[in-house]
Amino acid sequence: MDLEKKKKNFAKSFLTEMQIKVLELRRKGLTQEEIAKMLGTSRANISMIEKRAKENVEKAKNTLRIYNQIFAPLVINIEKDTDVLKIPEIVFKKADEKGIHVKYSTLDILEFIRKNAKNYVEKRVVKESFKIYVLENGELDIG
Amino acid sequence: MDLEKKKKNFAKSFLTEMQIKVLELRRKGLTQEEIAKMLGTSRANISMIEKRAKENVEKAKNTLRIYNQIFAPLVINIEKDTDVLKIPEIVFKKADEKGIHVKYSTLDILEFIRKNAKNYVEKRVVKESFKIYVLENGELDIG
Repeated sequence: MDLEKKKKNFAKSFLTEMQIKVLELRRKGLTQEEIAKMLGTSRANISMIEKRAKENVEKAKNTLRIYNQIFAPLVINIEKDTDVLKIPEIVFKKADEKGIHVKYSTLDILEFIRKNAKNYVEKRVVKESFKIYVLENGELDIG
Repeated sequence: MDLEKKKKNFAKSFLTEMQIKVLELRRKGLTQEEIAKMLGTSRANISMIEKRAKENVEKAKNTLRIYNQIFAPLVINIEKDTDVLKIPEIVFKKADEKGIHVKYSTLDILEFIRKNAKNYVEKRVVKESFKIYVLENGELDIG
């Protein structure tokens, strides 16, 4: 998508035009030095623009996580001592009761837990209770 | 998740503590009037806080869409005159070639197109070409 179209579609974002331009050029493989020359500014300036852009993307992610967790139609408490392999079944059952189609397979959920709940799990057992948030669109989050 | 934990986990978001608090109370079913009384302020003020919070959530969504589109590992051009029912096959084939596991079933993709590409599609045929962005995590976006 070119910049003009992006501007039209996404007028209201936390990225400036300049930040978007720098990210696009970086994506194309240009170095900060090359982008600085092209735009007639310093490498340090491009570096700062890229850093700010990435910070804003991280903040945007956190913003959506907070919002989604507040409005999640289903929050499942996973108790201490639960067998991790039982969690997909628990998630599917509770989601079914709410009429939510979870976007993940059993293996996807186990992988998701392995990646995102590692502080709560030891070997195959939950050592500290945690929450799984099931969103309207079938996505999952952990908190 | 309680507010303290949220603050710790999500220190860097585009939502203020006050905005989060108001969203949580709204989620619990309180009216703006009730929240205003509880927090010792005016209903108009609560209304403004809620409006700003929702604007920031929308801007956060747009921020992530821009970022994801720039860095999408696969962008598929869907040409004019394509049969819409052929699109899932096209998506799966191209994603396979890149080793990306698309999170959607055939029906999910058709539903996704029906919802998100309605300006590009008429009956069963693509009337204006558009792009499908396949993200690293198997999510799709349209632009």
